[in-house]
This record gives sequence, structure tokens and C-alpha cells, in this order.
Amino acid sequence: MITGKNYIGSQLKASGSKTFKTFNPQLNKENPWVFTEATQDEIEETVTLANQAFATYKKCSGSEKATFLNAIADEILALGDDLLTQYSSESGFPRGRAEGERGRMIGQLRSFADMLTEGSWVKATIDTAIADRQPAPKEDLRKIFAPLGPVVVFGSSNFPFAFSTAGGDTASALAAGCPVIVKSHSMHIGTGEMVASAIIKAAQKTNMPEGVFSNLIGGGTTLGASLVKHPLVKAVGFTGSIRGGRALFDLAAQRPEPIPVFAEMGSVNPVVLLPNALTENSEKWANAYAGSITLGAGQFCTNPGLLIGIKGAALTKFSEELATAIEKIAPSCMLHPSMQSGFEDGAQKMSAQPGVSKVAQYQGDVAPNYGAQTVLTVDGRTFLENKTLSHEVFGPFSIIVQCENQAELVAVIAQLDGQLTGTIIGEAKELEQHQDVVAAMQNRVGRLIFNGVPTGVEVCPSMIHGGPYPASSDSRFTAVGIDAVYRWVRPFSYQNWPNELLPLELQNENPLQILRMVNNSATKSPIK
Amino acid sequence: MITGKNYIGSQLKASGSKTFKTFNPQLNKENPWVFTEATQDEIEETVTLANQAFATYKKCSGSEKATFLNAIADEILALGDDLLTQYSSESGFPRGRAEGERGRMIGQLRSFADMLTEGSWVKATIDTAIADRQPAPKEDLRKIFAPLGPVVVFGSSNFPFAFSTAGGDTASALAAGCPVIVKSHSMHIGTGEMVASAIIKAAQKTNMPEGVFSNLIGGGTTLGASLVKHPLVKAVGFTGSIRGGRALFDLAAQRPEPIPVFAEMGSVNPVVLLPNALTENSEKWANAYAGSITLGAGQFCTNPGLLIGIKGAALTKFSEELATAIEKIAPSCMLHPSMQSGFEDGAQKMSAQPGVSKVAQYQGDVAPNYGAQTVLTVDGRTFLENKTLSHEVFGPFSIIVQCENQAELVAVIAQLDGQLTGTIIGEAKELEQHQDVVAAMQNRVGRLIFNGVPTGVEVCPSMIHGGPYPASSDSRFTAVGIDAVYRWVRPFSYQNWPNELLPLELQNENPLQILRMVNNSATKSPIK
Repeated sequence: MITGKNYIGSQLKASGSKTFKTFNPQLNKENPWVFTEATQDEIEETVTLANQAFATYKKCSGSEKATFLNAIADEILALGDDLLTQYSSESGFPRGRAEGERGRMIGQLRSFADMLTEGSWVKATIDTAIADRQPAPKEDLRKIFAPLGPVVVFGSSNFPFAFSTAGGDTASALAAGCPVIVKSHSMHIGTGEMVASAIIKAAQKTNMPEGVFSNLIGGGTTLGASLVKHPLVKAVGFTGSIRGGRALFDLAAQRPEPIPVFAEMGSVNPVVLLPNALTENSEKWANAYAGSITLGAGQFCTNPGLLIGIKGAALTKFSEELATAIEKIAPSCMLHPSMQSGFEDGAQKMSAQPGVSKVAQYQGDVAPNYGAQTVLTVDGRTFLENKTLSHEVFGPFSIIVQCENQAELVAVIAQLDGQLTGTIIGEAKELEQHQDVVAAMQNRVGRLIFNGVPTGVEVCPSMIHGGPYPASSDSRFTAVGIDAVYRWVRPFSYQNWPNELLPLELQNENPLQILRMVNNSATKSPIK
Repeated sequence: MITGKNYIGSQLKASGSKTFKTFNPQLNKENPWVFTEATQDEIEETVTLANQAFATYKKCSGSEKATFLNAIADEILALGDDLLTQYSSESGFPRGRAEGERGRMIGQLRSFADMLTEGSWVKATIDTAIADRQPAPKEDLRKIFAPLGPVVVFGSSNFPFAFSTAGGDTASALAAGCPVIVKSHSMHIGTGEMVASAIIKAAQKTNMPEGVFSNLIGGGTTLGASLVKHPLVKAVGFTGSIRGGRALFDLAAQRPEPIPVFAEMGSVNPVVLLPNALTENSEKWANAYAGSITLGAGQFCTNPGLLIGIKGAALTKFSEELATAIEKIAPSCMLHPSMQSGFEDGAQKMSAQPGVSKVAQYQGDVAPNYGAQTVLTVDGRTFLENKTLSHEVFGPFSIIVQCENQAELVAVIAQLDGQLTGTIIGEAKELEQHQDVVAAMQNRVGRLIFNGVPTGVEVCPSMIHGGPYPASSDSRFTAVGIDAVYRWVRPFSYQNWPNELLPLELQNENPLQILRMVNNSATKSPIK
């Protein structure tokens, strides 16, 4: 049952008077549930509670936190089909996507639980004392990662599960030892409430401190701004638009005590088509990219919005094949009428730019809130002269840039803003001959793909989901994979500390049997 | 020979008209050399050159960069006594300190060289493909750290060697693969020029690209601001005041593309004296702290500026012993007349606060630019009510806070801004009984010391030199130890990349024999 209330720790509260509803884009009508925005008093209560919880939660062992994360996964699964139905009613995504994304959310929670159980993620580093060193003795120093404090997570619009209430930001922050306050995304608050209820239940069953998790509702920007500016909040995770992410970054940077914001924002994910790929495998790649551009109605941050090649018969043929393939695909429902209109406006604005022409657009009937996939084309020189053409159009959209030559192609890449991904389609031999293209891409992206599509972000330790600004606000971290935990921790040193009072990870005996750096060597051995 | 010019790469240039001189605080007179500030054109030329160098330098192997860093160390040593004399003439520090700090600078350069030679620092992480995974195949993903781009380093006033031209920021950024532009600290530009000449010579001898290092001169804030705002600059390192560091942080955060600033700023380094320590070892600790407070004229960021204990006969006795010890120590010369006057003004302002009384002050004659060590005292309640009392006085200064009880002591710690270090003096048994004190300290500091003094920052992997704001602008990193390199790199993923075109660190054969994470296991084995 959806209550429409805020979770302030385990307490459901709704003392405010501002309410709103979510929208079912498939049915093209409002959903029945009424959600009440958090008041300033409730925000204050929530943050205070999170800060109190921090004092206890940060002392939890890795295995206690792992038990908590696994319990969250279990409780989410226990919500069964009701959760999937709720998800679809607030996102327009079909059942298959709901199941797939739930699997991803569960997988993420369990992968952080595994990381905690194994335990080496704290990067315990030990340099033992040298009492007789000249000219001065060396003191014993031991380092470990410690949690920052309460973290605010902004749910995304396009991943109601995997990048929202119990998504990667929440899972990684809880793994780090930080209490989490979620600002539920206003498009899917009912889904958020259900997931939040599972987290609360898991927290209670595993004896986590009250306030380790809260879920707040806000329709505009007030709630988010209040949270980011609150002195007890110590870090922020965000997935969404450049405008939204930058606004939070600015608020956080202007605080008396600035705090880190990890905002995963926009990306057009450039794809370079090298000549041989087009001569040898044109149709294969046209089909693959028709699928990638339209996947999930193009509502992925890794959607390939920019295809770049050298002008000529091969690229023309590829464009035609892409057009044929993409026009055959039935459009999908978008997340919300505002998403659909944003997509349509964006695509139209692009079409209207000088020198831009249409390659493909779905021609059949399009239901309300559905996105008619669109592919445009422009020459390299025009692209270089018009910054607008490199902006993201969120939805099933891509633009083919036809360059005069390789130098222009490199210039097109070099001029791009920072990107989550860059892809090169070609033969291995070609890659070697295009080292300038590779170098230009390396400068601009967080993940470089060879012969593949950027959509489909694998959750594994080697994945980087982040990149130079504005792909993310701090390229030194990733939002996906277990290393996402390092956004929420700081290194901490103990000097000359009594062995028995050190965290277990740093004690001589290495009771947790983790991999540690001891006097510059990686080892699991105890210290004698 | 000091030329007074800027190093724009290997070129000595001084086309500007603004000049100034440095000051010898021991002789209390200006030094003879005339230094010319960099012009806007020279700044532009320098950054463009650094950016060009980046394209080549980032491709250098670990062993090539190690050779470069070791060559810098060699060339600095080759400057011999002339460098030590120059250092003393621009800092007032005696010969012993000059030698010691040079040793530290050399040691830092060599420790980064060792890190590069060993090679595992890049944290190569590999997840191999699973072609038959359901429902979709898993692609091969491989991750490594990549350098950010040109880094600007602001030399510190108080460490003309170890935190300046070829100090920890420069060494770590060069190790990361980032070209460095140093804004030489205006108090010791001659020393900076000599060290810069060694770096340039080393770059030439080891065939590093022109522009991998530059050294610019500026008297005011224009040079620094121009560098931090330049679009081709990608990160900033700074050691100095809160005002200065925050100004750079703000400039960097307001850029169209914000960049990371690691500023190591102020700290009063609280020291808690637990009851037994005072009954058992009062005189020992009084002597140790008299030494720590006055070391280097108190001009250390880890200087213990705040001693906190429970009011009573034992604390009174300790205060008297500290007074006796500290008044016996001959004052030292400070870095510059402005440092001495800043110290004197600060100490006087503190003395004039309501409820503050004097414990000790050196009573003998004090030469010009020398700092007369001063210790004050105040009760806990007064301290809690007056924020001014927790500000740093840079110099040989400390204030003893006498608390009514343990709760007040914890409140005093909890109210402090972020700190580089916190120290607890006591018995191991006592530590166990004062877990609230320990917890409060952990929340506020980057390094926690038991029975020691905060001065003397060991350069080793377990050292954290950084802490919650304003100890540093980003507590997630350290300025000292080899992990300082992670401030200047970002993780980068290759997906499905041809093995022979991957960086050596990620190739199947593991040709560099480094420790890698392969499918979640730490190993040096090749991939078959």
C-alpha cells in the first residue's frame, strides 16, 4: 500500500500541506496516490536523525553492513510483483525492463555486500615503527578508509530502481558506513516509497540504528537545496541533467564547509565509424545502433547521440541502412509527458539548425508520450561551428557527423565536452592507424569501447561510469561498480595507536584475513 | 646564479615590467636579486606549452617517469651548498633545517620514483569477457588510472623545499603523468628558481617533452587566479592559509568546467591530555610539547595550537612545567617580517579575548623577525562561546583549554573545525575509558596520534596529511605519502579493447609483473 508519506527513519510522516501525484505515461493519466512534500521541520528532523545514526552506523563491522545490504535485497524481492506493477505505472517501462532493472538493483546491493564480507576494500595500509631509525625513530602508522557522514542521494528519473532509492548511490554510501537520505524522484515516488519500506524493514530486522535511511518527498527544488545546504550533510550523489547537477554542485561548493558532490550528468557518447567497419560490416552496425539508439526509448545516459565518420559512399550507405533499421522499430513510451515534449523540442531544435538534414524518423502513428526516434545528419565543419549540435537530446535521438577527413574527425572529438563513453567501430589494424582518434577520445571520455555499443553498463569492478565534466562533476570517481564506495570515504591514519583498540582491519593479527599493504608489500600475513 | 626570470618550459623569460625582491629575515634586509613577474602572454604561453607536453608526457612509461623523478633528485643534490645557502637567505631557517628539508624533498621524489618503478599504483583491474553469459554476454572490461592534465602547484611559505617547487605536489603530479606549472612562493623565489633549474635540467637529460615543467613568478594574486581559471589547467595543489586556499577553491568551482583543488589549509591540531598522563608523566609531556610548539618557530601546519584537559591541580602543574620549559627555549627567526607581525598580532588578539590569561611567554630579548613563543589559557566554557579562540595563530603559539569535566572536553572537540591531526596523551587503559573523546576526535581529524606530538609528518604510505574542511578542501585525499598521486588521476575503462593496443599494465601477459585485480582476485599472474 502506498501511503504518500515521508520516511523519517522508520516513521511515516506527512505534516505538510503541499501534495502532488505521479503520472502513468502509458495510460496518459495521473496515478491515484497523493504524495505529501516534506516540511522544513521534517527535513531538519531527518538530517538530525541521520547524524545521530552515523555515530553508531560508522562503527558497524563489514559483515554487519553486508547483512543489512543483503536484507535490503531480500525485502525488495519480497515485495514481489506489486513492486514491478508500481514501477511500470510510474515510468511507462514494460515488465521486462522492470524485472531486468530490479535484477540490476539487487545485484548491486549484493555486490557491495560481497565487497564488505571480503573486507579488503578498506585498503588497510600499515607502516610499522622503527625505534632505532636515525636521526629520529619512525612511529607506527596505520591507515584505513572512514565514512564521511550523512549522504544525500537524488533519485534519477530514468532508473527508478538501479539509480534511485536503493540504487548504486545508496548501496555504495551504506556500504561505506554513511547514513543515506534519499530525495525521491518526483516521477516515481510510489515506487520509491515501496523500495524505501523494504530498506526500513531490512534496517529493523538487522538492528541498524534508527535514521540510517530516510526517504523524503519534494516536488520542486526546495527539498534538494535544503538538504545540500544542511551543515550535517557531508556528501551528495546525483544522477540527472547538467542543469540540475550543476545547481547542486554550486550550492555545495558555496557552503561554509564545501562538501563533495558526485553528479552524473549529460553525455552524447560519441561513436566513431572507421572506414573498414563501414565497408565490411555496415549493415551489422546499422542494426546494432538502431537498437542502441532506441533502447529504453533512448532514455539512457549512455545513449549514442553522436555518430562520426568520414564523408563518402560508405557512410551514406550506413546512414541509409540505419534509417531502414530504425524506422522499423516501434517507438516506446517515455517516462513522462515532460520527457516526451523535452525530446520532441530538442529534436526539432536540432533539425532546425542550419545545415542539418533528416536521415530517419519513425513514420507510423505514435501514441501519446511515445518518442518517435529521429536521426539527423550534418557535415563536420558545420558541427564544429555550432556548439548547439553537441548538446544532448534525451530520448531516441542521434546525429551523424560527416567529416571531410581524419583531421576534421579528430577536431570534432577534441571539441566535445567530457563524456561518459566513447566508442570506436573498426578493425584492430585500423585502430592502430588511428592513434590520433584514440588519443582524442581518451582525453574526453571515462570509458572507451571497441566494436560495441555504449548502452549496457556492466556492473563490475573494471567499469567506469563517470568522465570529464560534465559527464560527471568529479572524474576521479565512478558511479557504477564497487569502487563507487570511494566517493563516500576519506582515508584516516592512526599513529602509535594501541593494537587492541585499532579497527580489526588494522590489528597486527589481521583477524579479518584481508589483503593489506604492510611496509610496502601486499600481504594477508599477520604482523609479528 | 639567480636570473630572476620565469621558466616557461626550459626558456628563461622576463618580458614583464613588474619586479620585486625577497627578504632575508635573519639579516632583516632585502635580498639583492630582482624577480620579474610573469605577464599574461607568458602565462598563456606556459599553459599552452604544458597542454602540448601532456599529449606526450601522459604516454611515458612508469620507468621513464621514475628516471625523470630520480634525475630531478640528482640535479637538486648537484646544486650543493649554494642551494642550502639560498634557502636560508630567503627563509631564515638554519642550515640543519635546510639539510633536513632537502632530504625530505629528495626522499619524496625517490619514493614516487620507486612507486612508478614497481608499477602497481595504477590499480589495474580486469574483468574478462563471458561470451556465453545469459541473458547477454559479458564484455571484457579493464580499468587503469589516467592523468588529469596540466596541474598548477602553489608553493608554500613554510616549506621552501618539501611543499614547494619540487615538493610533494609537484612530485606526485609528475608521477601521475601530469605536466606541472609552479606558482613560486614570493617569499623564496630565488630558492624556487634554483630548484626549477634542476627540474628543467633533469627533464632535458631524460628527454621529457618541453613544457612538462614551468616555474612562474607573481607577487600578488593575479598570476594564481589566471592559472586556476585557465581552461587548459585541470587541477590545483595548494598549501597555505584558509583564505588563500578557499579563494582558489571558489575560483575553480565557478569555472564553466570546475576542476579539483586540493588545498591544505589551516589546523590547530588539538591535543587532549587525559588525567593519568598528567599525574604520571606531566613533566615529560610538558618538555615534549614545549619542543613541538616552538619547532621551526611554530611554522608547521601540524603545530599543536590547542591543548585540552580537565581543570585541576594536575593540569595546573602541567601548565607550569610547560611554561618553565617553553620560556627556556631561545626564540627562532620567522620566515618574513609579515609572518612575525601576523603571529604577534594573532597572539595579542587572543590574549585580549575575555577570560584568556597568559601561561608563558619568552621574556628575554627578541631579535627582529623572531617569534617570542606564547602560551595562553582559558576555561572550556569561554572557549565554547568564543569561536575566535579556535582560530589558528601561525607561529610558536598554543592555548590550554581547561574543561570542567569530560562532557565539556568532548564538546570542545566536537565544536572544532576540521583538523589535520588530533592527539591523545594518556594510558592505553584510559583510552578505552574515553571512547567518547576518541569518537569526537575521529570525526574532526585526518590523523589520530596516541602519546606523541603532531609535528614530524612521516612520509610513508600510511600517512594522511589532510582532513575535514578546512584542514583540506577535499578530505578524500592526502598531500603526503605516495597516495597523494591519486589527487591527479581519474579511472579509465577499456571495453573489448585489442590486447596488443592496451597499456602494458592491462595486457593479458602482465609484462610489468604488477599486482592486479583480475576477476575479483589480487594476482600477478598473466591471463590465459
